Amino acid sequence: MEGRTYNFSAGPAPMPRSVLERARDELLDYNHEGASIMEVSHRGKSFLEVAEQSEQNLRDLLKIPANYKVLFLQGGARGQFAGIPLNLKGKKGSADYVNSGHWAQSAIKEALRYLDVNVIADGKGASFHTMPEESEWRFSSDAAYVHYTPNETIGGLEFPFIPDSGDVPLVADMSSNILSGPIDVSRFGLIYAGAQKNIGPAGLTVVIVRDDLLDRGHSNCPAVLDYRVQADKDSMYNTPPTFAWYLAGLVFEWLKEQGGLEAMDQLNDRKAGKLYRVIDESGFYHNKVDTRWRSRMNVPFTLAAPELDKVFLAESEKNGFLYLKGHKSVGGMRASLYNAVPEEHVDALIAFMKEFERKYG
Amino acid sequence: MEGRTYNFSAGPAPMPRSVLERARDELLDYNHEGASIMEVSHRGKSFLEVAEQSEQNLRDLLKIPANYKVLFLQGGARGQFAGIPLNLKGKKGSADYVNSGHWAQSAIKEALRYLDVNVIADGKGASFHTMPEESEWRFSSDAAYVHYTPNETIGGLEFPFIPDSGDVPLVADMSSNILSGPIDVSRFGLIYAGAQKNIGPAGLTVVIVRDDLLDRGHSNCPAVLDYRVQADKDSMYNTPPTFAWYLAGLVFEWLKEQGGLEAMDQLNDRKAGKLYRVIDESGFYHNKVDTRWRSRMNVPFTLAAPELDKVFLAESEKNGFLYLKGHKSVGGMRASLYNAVPEEHVDALIAFMKEFERKYG
Repeated sequence: MEGRTYNFSAGPAPMPRSVLERARDELLDYNHEGASIMEVSHRGKSFLEVAEQSEQNLRDLLKIPANYKVLFLQGGARGQFAGIPLNLKGKKGSADYVNSGHWAQSAIKEALRYLDVNVIADGKGASFHTMPEESEWRFSSDAAYVHYTPNETIGGLEFPFIPDSGDVPLVADMSSNILSGPIDVSRFGLIYAGAQKNIGPAGLTVVIVRDDLLDRGHSNCPAVLDYRVQADKDSMYNTPPTFAWYLAGLVFEWLKEQGGLEAMDQLNDRKAGKLYRVIDESGFYHNKVDTRWRSRMNVPFTLAAPELDKVFLAESEKNGFLYLKGHKSVGGMRASLYNAVPEEHVDALIAFMKEFERKYG
Repeated sequence: MEGRTYNFSAGPAPMPRSVLERARDELLDYNHEGASIMEVSHRGKSFLEVAEQSEQNLRDLLKIPANYKVLFLQGGARGQFAGIPLNLKGKKGSADYVNSGHWAQSAIKEALRYLDVNVIADGKGASFHTMPEESEWRFSSDAAYVHYTPNETIGGLEFPFIPDSGDVPLVADMSSNILSGPIDVSRFGLIYAGAQKNIGPAGLTVVIVRDDLLDRGHSNCPAVLDYRVQADKDSMYNTPPTFAWYLAGLVFEWLKEQGGLEAMDQLNDRKAGKLYRVIDESGFYHNKVDTRWRSRMNVPFTLAAPELDKVFLAESEKNGFLYLKGHKSVGGMRASLYNAVPEEHVDALIAFMKEFERKYG
């Protein structure tokens, strides 16, 4: 690629430039040890410092209360789709799930291997362009937990509130919006996220779990997915993905340097706000998601005529815009605006979109 | 660290220098795409090429027959400790396991969650310094599979033969000796290996599985560990650990450049041979493993007096030798001699050991 590039990949997604530069500079010699951080024992001093510091920085960023464990695991959110029922089922026979789109449905499908699922709110009838308000949700009295997907990466739908599940633990798949702004962790029983959007590279999964939920595990749960086992071993029951963890630690440091999650919150408001504004004002671009439920992280949009999709993709790519093609299940385009996407890249995309509309609109 | 360093970590372990240099050089811009390989979609052209080429190179290196699938997964060998019974149990109630030390025992413990285990050969009585000959193994007639651990990373024991399990699928945890020399893959039903010794960084797990074994999966098997699910999706049922996979691909290329596994075989014979020779001839250093069962990859050794351990570790570290401390369960020292450890590093270690013996022997 000649000239500037603008990466809007939905995940794996852009990393902060300064993080990659630092990783490059110390790739062959970490901390004057004469070896790469990926070449050393996870039980050695160098990596243990990386592990501790990264956890502390994540705790600082999200203000994670002391009665929550932070686990750095493998297997992605899809691994947790099984891990959650296997760990949290306890003596219950069912769990409540909110169906907000592709990822919620995938979580439900996997959970059904292990327990009954009550879909307590369903956006399917509205093509996942909006969701029933919380007052209409049919919470069960005897659910092991309530599961929802705060941000749907494919549909571009994000919950504008944290549901109130009462005494039932609230479980959230924050893969695509964790660290996009402050959240009140104490409202949740468990938060999990694949790293490959706002945390770091693919291959790392962060689980934040309240410590009273550690001991409900089922004997059928593979030990690598067992929260009690991993918590007791500081996420080193098996060899952790050390290089991915190290990179996540660099991202957490970068987030602190940027002003933390309050600064990210404002930045993400600005970035998504200006892109939706151009879409809504154009008459040429369209996003069907109810404005109150729109995602700040993933902005799907269609063009006035589907036959222009290929032209848009070809011209955008020629101009340095990468990975704008929408997910095959919804078509059209999608711009993912994770933390590491600079505001100037959104500005450049908007300029390109306006020019494209002028030519073809 | 000033001056040269010599990394003998048992895993995560040294990577080939040229692989790290290449990863560094293209860390910010892969293939002129204007993005890092870790920042792009696993379904995009760039990463799909990495995935295909790396699999082909691994197939070439190990001469993997066409009726075997190669999977690039997460969760490490410990994840497979559960994945294997969950995938291969079928309608059987038990499996045969060979107990050769720490890792075999860990595999057995995890398998017991899912089926009965027959220990058909046990080295425990001999402190895992040797194993019963194959003629003494008590194979079951109705086992779902026979599991063994060709190389015990901690005990430093390596099987000098491939067992003959007849029609029962042979399953091997090759985490610490895969790619150390040619093997006849057709003798196995399934081979698995955590990447962090001879393949690449931690966080990637390679599974090579005969295709008739893909459809025995148990409904309780998490989808991310389900071989059929992952085989049908080319290891992309969930987002794969793309950067670790890319690095593994670079290691496979490097292995081909080095002359393939025949060249590695000779190199590993030389490296381990000269280190064992020095140990055996010294009277100061000791390795208790039966010579026929000694590992080429992991060489544990003790000193004439345990109180010298700390002195040895301090002086060796001062001289640039990293991670020589033995595993806490066996004590003493351990030098891991994976493919990426250059022969000169073994020579340097030997020179240091001789000098240390001269001073303290």
